[in-house]
Amino acid sequence: MDNGAPTDHDNLNATGTLPKMAAEPGHDDARADLARPEPSRVSDELDEEDNTLRPAFLRKVVEALDAGDQETVYNLVEPLHPADVADLFELIGHDYRAALARAINDLLGSDVLAELNDWVRDDLVEELEPDEVAELAEQMETDDAVALIEDLDEADQQAVLAEMEPEDRAAIESALSFPEESAGRLMSRDVIAVPEHLSVGDLIDYLRRDDDLATEFWEVFVVDVKHRPVGTCQLSWILRAPREIALTDVMKRDQTLIPVTMDQEEVALRFQKYALISAAVVDESGRLVGQITVDDVVHIIQEEASEDILRLSGAGDGDINEPISLTVRTRLSWLVVNLGTAILASSVVGLFQNAIAHFALLAVLMPIVSGMGGNAGTQTLAVVVRAIATNQLTSSNTWWMIMRELRIALTNGLSLGLLIGTGTGLIFGNPHLGMVIAAAMIINNLVAGLAGILVPVGLDRLRVDPAVSSAVFVTTATDTMGFFSFLGLAVVTGLTS
Amino acid sequence: MDNGAPTDHDNLNATGTLPKMAAEPGHDDARADLARPEPSRVSDELDEEDNTLRPAFLRKVVEALDAGDQETVYNLVEPLHPADVADLFELIGHDYRAALARAINDLLGSDVLAELNDWVRDDLVEELEPDEVAELAEQMETDDAVALIEDLDEADQQAVLAEMEPEDRAAIESALSFPEESAGRLMSRDVIAVPEHLSVGDLIDYLRRDDDLATEFWEVFVVDVKHRPVGTCQLSWILRAPREIALTDVMKRDQTLIPVTMDQEEVALRFQKYALISAAVVDESGRLVGQITVDDVVHIIQEEASEDILRLSGAGDGDINEPISLTVRTRLSWLVVNLGTAILASSVVGLFQNAIAHFALLAVLMPIVSGMGGNAGTQTLAVVVRAIATNQLTSSNTWWMIMRELRIALTNGLSLGLLIGTGTGLIFGNPHLGMVIAAAMIINNLVAGLAGILVPVGLDRLRVDPAVSSAVFVTTATDTMGFFSFLGLAVVTGLTS
Repeated sequence: MDNGAPTDHDNLNATGTLPKMAAEPGHDDARADLARPEPSRVSDELDEEDNTLRPAFLRKVVEALDAGDQETVYNLVEPLHPADVADLFELIGHDYRAALARAINDLLGSDVLAELNDWVRDDLVEELEPDEVAELAEQMETDDAVALIEDLDEADQQAVLAEMEPEDRAAIESALSFPEESAGRLMSRDVIAVPEHLSVGDLIDYLRRDDDLATEFWEVFVVDVKHRPVGTCQLSWILRAPREIALTDVMKRDQTLIPVTMDQEEVALRFQKYALISAAVVDESGRLVGQITVDDVVHIIQEEASEDILRLSGAGDGDINEPISLTVRTRLSWLVVNLGTAILASSVVGLFQNAIAHFALLAVLMPIVSGMGGNAGTQTLAVVVRAIATNQLTSSNTWWMIMRELRIALTNGLSLGLLIGTGTGLIFGNPHLGMVIAAAMIINNLVAGLAGILVPVGLDRLRVDPAVSSAVFVTTATDTMGFFSFLGLAVVTGLTS
Repeated sequence: MDNGAPTDHDNLNATGTLPKMAAEPGHDDARADLARPEPSRVSDELDEEDNTLRPAFLRKVVEALDAGDQETVYNLVEPLHPADVADLFELIGHDYRAALARAINDLLGSDVLAELNDWVRDDLVEELEPDEVAELAEQMETDDAVALIEDLDEADQQAVLAEMEPEDRAAIESALSFPEESAGRLMSRDVIAVPEHLSVGDLIDYLRRDDDLATEFWEVFVVDVKHRPVGTCQLSWILRAPREIALTDVMKRDQTLIPVTMDQEEVALRFQKYALISAAVVDESGRLVGQITVDDVVHIIQEEASEDILRLSGAGDGDINEPISLTVRTRLSWLVVNLGTAILASSVVGLFQNAIAHFALLAVLMPIVSGMGGNAGTQTLAVVVRAIATNQLTSSNTWWMIMRELRIALTNGLSLGLLIGTGTGLIFGNPHLGMVIAAAMIINNLVAGLAGILVPVGLDRLRVDPAVSSAVFVTTATDTMGFFSFLGLAVVTGLTS
C-alpha cells in the first residue's frame, strides 16, 4: 500500500513525462495527449494479457545480474510497481534473490516486502541485519510489520524489536500477543477516531490540522468517552454534508464490530457478507483498538479458498515457494496415511482371493466400481466442504442437504448401474455378472453420497477442519465398500461357483 | 450496499434505542451505556460464533408462515440486516419462499436481492410481474440490476426493460452489450469525475452542491476534456489537503485502468495485486465509462477459487441452491466420462487376466499402486491449478516448476516404494513380489508428477480451463500406468510363471 503524504503523489508517476499542470478544459493540448498512459498497465515488462512479468524481461535481469551490472538491474526494475518487484523476486529463483536485493537496494521498500510471498520474504529477511529489518518494519503499517516479524524465530524477533522505536515496538508486541490468524494480528492501529460532539466542519479542520494522522483511510470512527465506537462515517458522506451538520447526524450507528480475537476466516466472511470496506476492531471491553481494511481481507479470502482445495488434495499449503523438503514432508505424510487406507481396501480384496483365482474377470471389473464411487464421493465432498466454509451449509439446512445428496446419489447410481450393468452383461454374455456390477455400483454411489456429506459435516461438528481429513475417510469408504459389495455379491449370488 | 442519503443513516439503527445526541466527553451517561451495541452483531437471530441464522429462529419463521401469520413473520424479519434476510430466503427452502416474500413485502428490497444466491433470486423473480422487477431494478446500482436481469430469458428481459425509465434502461442495455463476466457487466456507472482545473475547495463545494451524485464512493476521478482519466484522488487525501491546493497536486497520476472488456477473474487479480479499493473502467478510446469497487470483486475472488475446487472434482458450479436436475446432469456427465477412463484402465487389467488367475495376489495388490498414483497426481494437480489461477505459475517459471515436481515425485516414489516393497516382501515372504511393487510404485509416482503438471499447463496453453478437465487425464494416466507397470513387471520378470 502506498503511504506517501498527499503532495508526494507526483513522485509515483511512472512515466515522469506528464506535464504538472495538464490541459484546461476546451484547450486541446497535443503534448498532454502524447503523454497519456495507455488503458491498463501495458509495458515492456508486463505481459498484456495476464499482467505477469514477461520471460524476456526476466532474462534481461538475470543476464545483468550474471554480469554484475547493478546499474542495468536498477534501471530495469525502477519503473516497476512494488507488487511487480515482489513478483520479480518470486520468479527469479532462490539463487538470484540476494544479488537482486543488493542491486536495487532502496527500491526494496516496505511496500515490496508487504507484497512478497511469505517464504520468499523469509529468504530475503535472513540476509538482512536486525537493524535493517527494524528500519523496514518501522516504515510499514502494523499489520504488514507483524507479518514480516511473526515468522522469525524467537531470538531474531527479539533482536529486531530491540532495534525499533519504543512506540512501534509496543504496537508490534501487542499485535503478537494475539493468536495467529486473529483479527488482532491483521488490524492496523492507525485509526481516525473522533468524539461525538464534533460537527462535519470540526472534523475536516481536525483532519487538515493534524499531520500525524494516517493518510489513507476510508471511514472515520466516532467514539464515546470510553473510546467505544458509537458510529462510523464514510468519507463520502462527510464530503457531501454541509460543515455545520453534527457528525452524529451523518454517521451510521449500526456497524459491524470485529472482536480482536476473531479468526481471520470469520473476519473475511463478515466483510464479504456485509460488503465492508473497513471495520472497527474492538477489545473485550468494547474499546476501539484498530481497524481492518478490505485489501488485507482480499488476500485472506483467496488464501482460505485455495487452502480448501489444497488440503482436500493433501497438498498442505501448496505454496510453490516453500522449501522442497517441507513440501515432500507434507505430501509424503498424506500419502502414507492414504497407503494405510489402500492396504485396508486391498485386504478386502484379499478376502476374495479364491473367487478371483476362479474367475479373474472379477479383478478386471472391480476397479471400475471402487473408482466410480471415489469420483462420486469427491464431487459431494467438494460441494459440502465449500458450502461449510462459506456458511451456506449450517445446522438449519443439514438435513435438507443430506436428503438432497442422497437423491442425487440414487439417481446417479441407478443411471451408472444400468449403463455398466447392461454393457457388462452384453459384452461378456453374462447377465448375472451384469446384475452384480449394477447392484454394486448403486450401493457404492449411495455410500459415496452418504460419506461425502456425513464425514465433513461430522468433522466440522467436532471442530476439525473438514478440508484436511475428509478425503481419507471418504476414499476408504468408497474403496472398501466398492470391492466388498462387488466381490461379495458375486460370491453370495453364486457367480463364482 | 446501503445507498441512503447521509441524513438517513439513523433509520438504519437496528436497536432503535440509542439517544440521538449521545453523551458529551467527560459526561458519563448511564442511559447511553445501556444502549451500546455489543461487539459484533450478537442477537437472538444470529449464531454468535459463525454469524449464521439460528435454527430456532428459522423454525419460528416457518411456524408463523404455516399459521398464515404474516404480521409475526414481518416482525421477526424486520430487525435483520439485508444480507441476513437474503440468507433466510436461501435457508428456508423453495416451498416457503413465495409466502415469505409476500409476508415481508417492503423488506424485500434491492439490497436483499443483490445479496441473494443467483438460483434463489431467479426462483423469487419468477413470482414477480415485469413492472415489479423493473421497479426493484431501478432502485439498484447498475451492476446489481444487471445481475438481476441478465439471467431472465429474452422475452422476460424485454418485458422488464420496457417498464423501466429510459435512463436506467439505457444503462442496463449498455451493460448487457458487454460479454458475460466482463468488467462492463461488473462496473457501476455512478462515478464522480471532475475536470483537471479544480482546486480541492472547488471539488468539495461541487460535491456538497450536486444532489444527484452517488452517496457512496471511495475516490474521485480527474478527467481531461475527452473524459479520459488523468488521475485519481482518494477521499482521505482530499479531506486532509487545504482548500486552495489544486487537485492536480493532490491526485495520483499513476492508476490501474480496467478495460471494459477485461474478464472478471483478471479484474479480481489486479485488485488483489495492487490492493485497490476502486478502479476506473475505460472503453477502447480510453474514456472513463464506470468504476468497479472492491466489494463486487470480493465475491468474484471467492467464486473463482471455489470454482476451481468444484471443477477439479467434477461438481460443476456446485451451488447447493441450483435445481437438483441440473446438479444430476452436471455430475452424471462427469461420472460417465470417468467411467470411460475406468473402463480403459480395467482393459489394461484385462490384458493380464491369465496372470491374475495364476497368481490372484496380484489383483489384491494392484489397487494400491494405481490408487497411490492417483493421490500423488491429485496433489500436484491441485497445486498447479491454483498456481496458474493466481498467476504464480507463468511461462517464466514453468521449467523450474516441472523440475520441482519431478524431484518431489521421485523422493515420494522412492520412499513409498521402499515402504510398500519391504512390507510386501516380508508379509508374503516373496522378495521378488516386493521388488515388483516397489518399482511400479516409483514409476507411477513419476507418471503422477509429470501428468499432474504437464496436463494443466498444456491445457492452459491451449486456453482450456485446466480445472475443468485435468483430473480425467491425470487419473487415466495414473490408473492405466499403475496397473500396467505392476502387472507388466510381474509378468516380464517371471513372477507368475
